Amino acid sequence: QLDTEEDVWQDDEYFGNYGTLRLHLEMLSDKPRTETYRQVILSNSAPLRGKVIMDLGCGTGIISLFCACLSQPAAVYAVEASSVAEYTCALVKQNRCENVVKVFQARIEELTLPGKVDVLVSEWMGNCLLFEFMVESVVLARDRWLKQGGMMWPSSACLTLVPCQALTDYSEKMDFWDRPYGLDFSCLKPLAQKEFFSKPKFNHQIVPEDCLSAPSDVITLNMHTLQVSDLEKLSGNFSFTVEKFGTLHGFTAWFSAQFQSLEKDGTVLELNTGPHSELTHWKQTLFMLDSPVTVHEGDCIAGSITLQRNPIWRRHMTITFQWSINSTKVSQVQTNSFPMWR
Amino acid sequence: QLDTEEDVWQDDEYFGNYGTLRLHLEMLSDKPRTETYRQVILSNSAPLRGKVIMDLGCGTGIISLFCACLSQPAAVYAVEASSVAEYTCALVKQNRCENVVKVFQARIEELTLPGKVDVLVSEWMGNCLLFEFMVESVVLARDRWLKQGGMMWPSSACLTLVPCQALTDYSEKMDFWDRPYGLDFSCLKPLAQKEFFSKPKFNHQIVPEDCLSAPSDVITLNMHTLQVSDLEKLSGNFSFTVEKFGTLHGFTAWFSAQFQSLEKDGTVLELNTGPHSELTHWKQTLFMLDSPVTVHEGDCIAGSITLQRNPIWRRHMTITFQWSINSTKVSQVQTNSFPMWR
Ligand SMILES: [Ca+2]
Ligand SMILES: [Ca+2]
Repeated sequence: QLDTEEDVWQDDEYFGNYGTLRLHLEMLSDKPRTETYRQVILSNSAPLRGKVIMDLGCGTGIISLFCACLSQPAAVYAVEASSVAEYTCALVKQNRCENVVKVFQARIEELTLPGKVDVLVSEWMGNCLLFEFMVESVVLARDRWLKQGGMMWPSSACLTLVPCQALTDYSEKMDFWDRPYGLDFSCLKPLAQKEFFSKPKFNHQIVPEDCLSAPSDVITLNMHTLQVSDLEKLSGNFSFTVEKFGTLHGFTAWFSAQFQSLEKDGTVLELNTGPHSELTHWKQTLFMLDSPVTVHEGDCIAGSITLQRNPIWRRHMTITFQWSINSTKVSQVQTNSFPMWR
Repeated sequence: QLDTEEDVWQDDEYFGNYGTLRLHLEMLSDKPRTETYRQVILSNSAPLRGKVIMDLGCGTGIISLFCACLSQPAAVYAVEASSVAEYTCALVKQNRCENVVKVFQARIEELTLPGKVDVLVSEWMGNCLLFEFMVESVVLARDRWLKQGGMMWPSSACLTLVPCQALTDYSEKMDFWDRPYGLDFSCLKPLAQKEFFSKPKFNHQIVPEDCLSAPSDVITLNMHTLQVSDLEKLSGNFSFTVEKFGTLHGFTAWFSAQFQSLEKDGTVLELNTGPHSELTHWKQTLFMLDSPVTVHEGDCIAGSITLQRNPIWRRHMTITFQWSINSTKVSQVQTNSFPMWR
C-alpha cells in the first residue's frame, strides 16, 4: 500500500503544516527558543562579519534576519521547503535585508546554492530531540554545503531523561473509572491504559518536584560528525539514584542544544528545554509505564533507552526503555516500547 | 468527487472518534453535564417507575445506568452506533443492570426496538448547540419511537449570544507581528487575520468581565415539535445594549438545555454552558470580527445570526452575523460569515 517515497516521509503533510502560520507563530512566540538564536548571532556578531551563512528550514526567516540585522555577513542563504517561503521573501524585503538574505524555496536534495557556507544554522529539533527527523536534512546539507572547518549551530544536542512522578496525568486517565458518579467503570481501565499511555505524551509539563532524581544526559549528538546512518538506532544508558520517597509513573525526556562560539574560548550558549529552564513550545515528553511503582530514597533505577527509527515511516521512531530497580537480575528487567507515532 | 452518502456525513470519522475512550472520558469527567442528567433522572425517579426509556447515542451508557440505578424503569434501550457499544454492554453487566438496560448497536435509521418508549433522553448537543447535527437523529428517533405524549430530555434548548471583548486572543494572534524581536513582521497580519479568525474558536473560555452586555437567547428549539427541515436554516435577532466602555472583538455563543419534569408543575432543570455557570467541556464559541471596534455604555449592537446547514457536509454549518452599532442605515450593516468547519 506504499506507493512512493513521498508517502513514507509524509512530506505533503509535513511541509503543508509549515505552510500555515500556526506553527510559525508558536515557534516565534517561544521566547527561550528564538532569543537563544538571537543571542548566538549577537554574541558572534564580530566573527560573522563577511561570512556566508545557511539558515536551513528558515520558516519565516527570523534567524536569517537576525544575521543580517545584528551582524554584517557577506550573504545569508535562507532555505525553506514549505510554501511559507513566499512570506519569507516579503519579510526580507520589509526589513530591507534583500541585499544580504537570499531565499531559496527548495528541499535540501534539490537545493543549488551559489557556493559553500561558513556557518550552517538551523532549528531542526523536534519532540524528544529527533521526532520528524529534520536532522537528516541538516546532516545532508552539512556534507554538501558546509566548508571544511565550518561551524554548525547547534554544534551539539543532548537528550536528557529523568524518572518521574505523574500523578495528575495518571489519576485523570486511570482513577476516574473506579467509581464515577457511584457507578463501577473499572472494566474500562485496561482499555484506558492502552489508549492513553501506549504513546508518549508530547505536551507534558513536568515540575521539578516530580523529578525523582537528578536528570541525566542519555544521548549526545555531535553535529559536526553525526552521520545519517547513526540515526537509525541511538541508545544510551542511565543509572538514577532516587532522591526522595515517591511513585515512579514513568520517564520524562527533553533536550538541550549547544552553540559553540566562532571565537576560540568564546562562551558556549545553550537552549535547554528541561523543567529547570523557562518553558518552551516543545515542553517535555512523558513516557508512562504500565503500572506505578513506589520508590524510596537511595533506590537505583538503571537501564537503557533506545530510539529506533521507523524503517518505513521515516519521520517516526519507537522509543524503548529497559530498566530495573535495585536489581542485577536479568529477570527483573522490564521493557516498555512507545511508538512516536508509528 | 463525492461518491456516497457516507462521505458527506463523514460517519467513519464521526463514529470512529466515539469508538475511542478519549471523547467519552472528556464527556464523563464533565461534572456539570453528567450531574445534570443524573439530577434529571433522580428528581424524576418516582414517575420514571415502570416507564420505557430510550437513551440515544448512549456512549458508555452512563445515563442508562443512572436510569436503572436511580429509578425502576420497565426497560432502558441504550442505543449507540459507534464501537464503544461493546464496552457499554460490559459496563451494564458490571453494574448488574442487564435485566433493565438493553444495548443496541445501531444507527437510528436501522434501529429496531421491541416497542415505543415513554421517554427519549439524549445528550446530542454540540458546539454552538448544533455542530455535528446529532439532533437530526434525535428528531428521527422521536418521530419513529416516542409514544404520543412522551417526554423529550432535553425538552428544549437555546443558543445564547453576547457581544464581547477578546483582547488576549486578538493580541496573541495579531499584535505579535508588529515588532517581534525588533523586526517588522506586520506584512503577515492579513494572513494571520484570515488563518486564525475566519473560523470560530471552539474551546474559548469567556470570563463574565469580557461580556459587553447582558447575553440574549437568539434561537430556541422545542424538542417536541422541531422538524428536520427546520435545521436547514435557523435565524434569530439580537439587540444588545452595551453596559460598559470597551472593545468589541466579536460575539461569543453558548447553549443551554432544559429538562421538563414528568410531574405536572415539577421543577425544570437546566444545563447552562455559559460564562455564569461552571465550565463544561463545550466551553464557549468565539466569533472574532474583522476588526475591533470601540464601544461605549448605552451603545446598541443590533442584528441577526443565521445558522445555515451545509447542503453537502451535513454535520457542518455556516454561521453568519449581520449587525450594526447605533444605526438604522442599511449601509452600516456589517456581515461576517464563519464556516464551522466547511
Ligand atoms: Ca522544530
Ligand atoms: Ca455531544
